[in-house]
Amino acid sequence: MDKAPRIAIDAMGGDGGPATMIAGVAQACDRDSSLRFTLFGDEAAIRAELARYPQIADSRVVHCDDVITGDDKPSQAIRRTKTSSMGGAILAVKDGEAVAAVSAGNTGALMAIAKLSLRTMHGIDRPALAALMPTLGDQDVVMLDLGANTDCDARNLVEFAVMGAAYSRLALGVASPRVRLLNIGTEELKGTGELKDAAAMLRQQTGGAWRFDGFIEADRVCRGEVDVVVSDGFSGNIALKAMEGTARFITDLLKRAFSSSLRSKAGFLLSRPAFALLSHHLNPNNHNGAVFLGLNGLVVKSHGGADANGVANAIDVAAKIARQDLTRRITDDLEDFRSHAVEPQPSQEGVE
Amino acid sequence: MDKAPRIAIDAMGGDGGPATMIAGVAQACDRDSSLRFTLFGDEAAIRAELARYPQIADSRVVHCDDVITGDDKPSQAIRRTKTSSMGGAILAVKDGEAVAAVSAGNTGALMAIAKLSLRTMHGIDRPALAALMPTLGDQDVVMLDLGANTDCDARNLVEFAVMGAAYSRLALGVASPRVRLLNIGTEELKGTGELKDAAAMLRQQTGGAWRFDGFIEADRVCRGEVDVVVSDGFSGNIALKAMEGTARFITDLLKRAFSSSLRSKAGFLLSRPAFALLSHHLNPNNHNGAVFLGLNGLVVKSHGGADANGVANAIDVAAKIARQDLTRRITDDLEDFRSHAVEPQPSQEGVE
Repeated sequence: MDKAPRIAIDAMGGDGGPATMIAGVAQACDRDSSLRFTLFGDEAAIRAELARYPQIADSRVVHCDDVITGDDKPSQAIRRTKTSSMGGAILAVKDGEAVAAVSAGNTGALMAIAKLSLRTMHGIDRPALAALMPTLGDQDVVMLDLGANTDCDARNLVEFAVMGAAYSRLALGVASPRVRLLNIGTEELKGTGELKDAAAMLRQQTGGAWRFDGFIEADRVCRGEVDVVVSDGFSGNIALKAMEGTARFITDLLKRAFSSSLRSKAGFLLSRPAFALLSHHLNPNNHNGAVFLGLNGLVVKSHGGADANGVANAIDVAAKIARQDLTRRITDDLEDFRSHAVEPQPSQEGVE
Repeated sequence: MDKAPRIAIDAMGGDGGPATMIAGVAQACDRDSSLRFTLFGDEAAIRAELARYPQIADSRVVHCDDVITGDDKPSQAIRRTKTSSMGGAILAVKDGEAVAAVSAGNTGALMAIAKLSLRTMHGIDRPALAALMPTLGDQDVVMLDLGANTDCDARNLVEFAVMGAAYSRLALGVASPRVRLLNIGTEELKGTGELKDAAAMLRQQTGGAWRFDGFIEADRVCRGEVDVVVSDGFSGNIALKAMEGTARFITDLLKRAFSSSLRSKAGFLLSRPAFALLSHHLNPNNHNGAVFLGLNGLVVKSHGGADANGVANAIDVAAKIARQDLTRRITDDLEDFRSHAVEPQPSQEGVE
């Protein structure tokens, strides 16, 4: 791979627009000056921001008239692949101009354009959106799918397990990731037919660089007992949003509680280092950068509300998975899994 | 209704067994001395605990040899309805001996026994498990279904909406509850076919004592913007557990942060009133008592890990919904909804 990896940036996506995206690019460059960038979007707006950051003055700028908004349907967005800043960034990956694309725009549109332009990897039916979440343990946990696929069958879930394990090994350095399926109970008889079938297929797995540990309930995801949590995109999105919402809910309650009296305010000041530690753990910007796994090309989704630090973290993720050749690793792991897999028994569902 | 409502208690369910359950009964009696109790389970164990609480010495005790455990399948549990403490408590409701049953045992077994013994209300296909969750607003939010039904069709979801609204009005006194369907986006095109169909049916609703506000994402449930959140039991359980797990995760992080230095410890001591406020909000015991809605009889599920205070709260819930005649209120609301409902357009799913 090129010694100076080039990242394609959709400069128009996200709540903060070009100002936040380009501030994030500058921060990413401060951390790793070997990175190079191609910025897609309104050229005048981009150049105005670029003028503030001499360290990324050599970035390429590709003007695009069109911006895909949060209201655009995926079916509309794919027709604007060639004209939009989001589509431009993805096509740069397809054409080999960039090693990865980063966008903070509409997730559904990003997924649709990426899938159509880059195509899924050989042997993968559907790509999945994966992110790292903080835990009480030493390592983050990989969660996928977080919303790319509303309905999934058992084979999709098995593919997500293989891809998630590969991502855990690469991104976190976990030697033998512990993989579980998200369910509403841990007993074998719990959950949907798809989950039971996927569990049966995963239990057949022998050898390989990861292991399947059965089901997990949503309250145990962050305890540090598991490295990869696999779900369909609907459940995964519900779990992720419930976690994010609860973290914000508690932060808001804390603020309210600590401003309720002078004594509490004094306690807060004294405890500031403790809160800083907590807030570092909970700040979603520190975990920004969800990865689309299973495509012939790397695409990273930055949270729409991420600040410049969050955008820089998403760019870090993109650079890291590009350097580590995530796509090849997933291909190898899939082949390994298939070579060891025994054809599963058909589900009993519907027979009873 | 009887001036001294009698509550049937499964004294054997829950992690703490009879000691916790009967301590909870005693606390409930301290709060409301008009309550009477029938206790089901091992008579010797129950009498030993009862001896400690003279205020509930007049409780009836019904000996049952059999205890349903967390490992028992629902299909096994229903065969033991007559012999088990859980089944005994539910049959007491069926026979009119008690106005409501409270159990901290196996949820799936409780659901199966309750459904078979009490039957669903006229016009209700499936019962749902509903609980109150804290919010940033003045009122708790009702969430249902929390795990009684893994798969739900659109009509089930509509019935849950009607039942949840009735529960919100009764339990929380909300005049016109705002009802939403849990989804992975708020746009009309998001989510499963069942959700889209249910939304179409709910939008037809005119008049009535509640209103449908569309979809809600899991991160907005606790913001105080909604009174009833409706989902299938799988998604609802995932959301509930993710919320509980995140609350515990953050509490653990806080403890760790505040014991990280002497300074932080001092800050913690100074801030103790603020933490007490937070912990009151987050302690699941203060929100204990999930209700099975849609049965011809009232059954309340206490959390398996609840302490005596939590059990007392679950008993409070049971007494309250019995006094307010929740079953009749739901029947009236269902009739009202059906009299106003327009037959929905068939789903476009599968046609495209």
